[in-house]
Amino acid sequence: MSTKKEIKPAARVSSNKQDVWSLVNEAAAAAAQGGQSVTNLGQGFFGYNPPKFVLDAAKEVLDRVECNQYSPTRGRPRLLKALSEAYSPFFGRTLDPNTEIVVTTGANEGTLAAFMGFIEEGDEVIVMEPFFDQYIHNIQMAGGKVVYVPLHPPKDGASKTCSSKEWTLDIEEFKSKITPKTKMMIINTPHNPIGKIFTKEELKAITDLAVEHNILIVSDEVYDRLFYTEFTRVATISPEVENLTITVGSGGKTFNATGWRVGWLIGKPHLIKPASVGHTQLCYSSVSPLQEATAIGLEKAESENYWEHSVKTMKHKMDLFNEIWDELGIPYTVPDGGYFVLANFSKLKLPEDYPFPPSVQNRARDFKLCWWFIKELGVAAIPPTEFYTEENAHMAEDYLRFAVCKEDSMLEEAKEKLRKLKPLLEN
Amino acid sequence: MSTKKEIKPAARVSSNKQDVWSLVNEAAAAAAQGGQSVTNLGQGFFGYNPPKFVLDAAKEVLDRVECNQYSPTRGRPRLLKALSEAYSPFFGRTLDPNTEIVVTTGANEGTLAAFMGFIEEGDEVIVMEPFFDQYIHNIQMAGGKVVYVPLHPPKDGASKTCSSKEWTLDIEEFKSKITPKTKMMIINTPHNPIGKIFTKEELKAITDLAVEHNILIVSDEVYDRLFYTEFTRVATISPEVENLTITVGSGGKTFNATGWRVGWLIGKPHLIKPASVGHTQLCYSSVSPLQEATAIGLEKAESENYWEHSVKTMKHKMDLFNEIWDELGIPYTVPDGGYFVLANFSKLKLPEDYPFPPSVQNRARDFKLCWWFIKELGVAAIPPTEFYTEENAHMAEDYLRFAVCKEDSMLEEAKEKLRKLKPLLEN
Ligand SMILES: Cc1ncc(COP(=O)(O)O)c(C=O)c1O
Ligand SMILES: Cc1ncc(COP(=O)(O)O)c(C=O)c1O
Repeated sequence: MSTKKEIKPAARVSSNKQDVWSLVNEAAAAAAQGGQSVTNLGQGFFGYNPPKFVLDAAKEVLDRVECNQYSPTRGRPRLLKALSEAYSPFFGRTLDPNTEIVVTTGANEGTLAAFMGFIEEGDEVIVMEPFFDQYIHNIQMAGGKVVYVPLHPPKDGASKTCSSKEWTLDIEEFKSKITPKTKMMIINTPHNPIGKIFTKEELKAITDLAVEHNILIVSDEVYDRLFYTEFTRVATISPEVENLTITVGSGGKTFNATGWRVGWLIGKPHLIKPASVGHTQLCYSSVSPLQEATAIGLEKAESENYWEHSVKTMKHKMDLFNEIWDELGIPYTVPDGGYFVLANFSKLKLPEDYPFPPSVQNRARDFKLCWWFIKELGVAAIPPTEFYTEENAHMAEDYLRFAVCKEDSMLEEAKEKLRKLKPLLEN
Repeated sequence: MSTKKEIKPAARVSSNKQDVWSLVNEAAAAAAQGGQSVTNLGQGFFGYNPPKFVLDAAKEVLDRVECNQYSPTRGRPRLLKALSEAYSPFFGRTLDPNTEIVVTTGANEGTLAAFMGFIEEGDEVIVMEPFFDQYIHNIQMAGGKVVYVPLHPPKDGASKTCSSKEWTLDIEEFKSKITPKTKMMIINTPHNPIGKIFTKEELKAITDLAVEHNILIVSDEVYDRLFYTEFTRVATISPEVENLTITVGSGGKTFNATGWRVGWLIGKPHLIKPASVGHTQLCYSSVSPLQEATAIGLEKAESENYWEHSVKTMKHKMDLFNEIWDELGIPYTVPDGGYFVLANFSKLKLPEDYPFPPSVQNRARDFKLCWWFIKELGVAAIPPTEFYTEENAHMAEDYLRFAVCKEDSMLEEAKEKLRKLKPLLEN
């Protein structure tokens, strides 16, 4: 008998819950085995390339020696300058490229860097449900405790199509979550998966609490170039709020290049400095050639009419795809921003004796919907209760999330497959 | 008076010690102001491009939609396969691309992912001095406690040129650092900054302790393609050792592309699984187009004769540069691998009344040497005591680290500048 201690993985990586991405893949594999081709509107990656002027820039910079080597940890000077020029007008003041911006390895690592910069063991961070799932691991990695508060779905979301504005925060409920340990809160606008853009009034109410209790705000605005109604940036609510707000952006979302892993944080120097030290400690510096290409993209976007083009393109895709719900009489949430749409399938009866695998059997109804859609219809979507705590999962268990950042032909293919739902819907 | 709590950055980012990289930059800026041009042999980035077949691959893959979007969190299938094919022969068995390799955002984030996969609050990790500085933050981020043990410099390193083999670990001293809380140890071979390649015997002695006490090993082998004597991989010492070893590799070091941020971990499935969950939690997935280009690089390297070429090129640079030390009578450590060389300046008298800035005044002598070399000679090098604890800094305070991964012309330029030392050297 050995008396050696056992080598155990750390608790943070030891969850037994299958993550939604591998579950969707498993379902797709099972479907393919059954001869089903799968149209994947699950994960939010683009089904098409970055614009040509950005791709050309990437190819060109690969010839420059310094573009293939380590960048300064805070980001390449050209990208910092381009970000300052692109974002200063939105912030209503000149952003200092040297002290008020840091380039990160995607928005994802940027958010983690912000947490690492401020969270100490036991600090609380308020997160709204549904949430972008990486927030949770990232807060916990920094030693923080996640405190949840739900966005309440539209009361009649099961029976009629609603605006994403009808997903609402109960501000008294939010307030009740604040304790002396609350260090940060996260706001995500435009919101994944709801497509909600928080109104100025909503933001005012939330940030009043932040100012009153001196709570830092991480404002995840990665979909900031994709809005179909008025969009207010959290940091612009007031100077007091700006003093508390770290704004998160993503080059991947901006230029259809989710695999490039370029993101950024913007905020006052006292916020960016700790976050940028966190960033340096996490991954030293971010990918050089694609930083430089992103800089060139930002420099040229205006003259290429890219901003207008990208909003128009995405809005077109959104409308094109959502026709199917109107056709089928399936209620959905009309997004004000981003590229996701939530449809509500409470009307759809799944066969009682359907053979769901164990990984799905014990999850909320949307996981069963997800599996069944892939297996029977060949359409992959994401079950949104993955982005809820168990306590509040029931709120979203009739919904599925579809990503429309795909070729039009793929959206049409998905619609055609979804037409098979028609005979199964109760009226 | 406000009763609000103060918002403080986290302790982990609040060190007041200026990091060596910004210090070197500050010195270079001061030198430039004084009209000095600076030849930078400080940081270990390449002064030349990746090979053409790798750059061409990068440009080509940028046209493929899927190469610009999120990759699977564990890495792109083509890169996993290419890594399996490139590394299986070294490990003496077929590495399973699906369970025994994970692609990370540089070796740096790979190492952090390994820590996140295994370290719990209070676990101890043994690190040898001098160390690659990111280890320290990364261990601490995961909640670990760093336990230091020095590599002892050659006894007569101040008076004669030595082999990097003469930097030695006192195995009894190492053993004395093991406690019931020791969870991991780090081995770095070929070593930065010493250029030491641990011999099979040395590795046997260290890994015997790992096996006896069931301690995980992170073997940082990022310079695994740059060795000038026999190189033994830690995982090949024995099957028991392989069961404990996570090997770290770097695409940046392999293909002269430190800014690409592609790295990897290799090990048995029970080691790679927790590390890959850690990786997913840290930054989701790594940069897609440069993963694909690295895959193509690995596929073609053999037929392009790249491996032999890169060893030859670097050995040539090393010999070319080190001529200056022989010429000046400055003793140095002849590296067995990697691209750094340590030279010993105990013979050099710095002016007693030299106006060093406060950031340097309170550091070990090598920081003064570093500042003075930049200001007076226009040559930037790295003070290695940055990679020591205060207790052991004295061991390296007469050394400076020079990176030779630069154009030959730049090495010649540095040599010419270093000739100005001649009259200042005692004999
Ligand atoms: C709300 C939100 N934040 C952050 C991210 C991550 O962005 P990036 O790919 O730049 O890391 C995503 C990606 O889906 C997201 O939806
Ligand atoms: C010993 C060692 N490990 C890891 C790294 C980091 O490698 P990468 O650039 O792939 O993150 C370096 C870079 O200098 C290094 O010297």
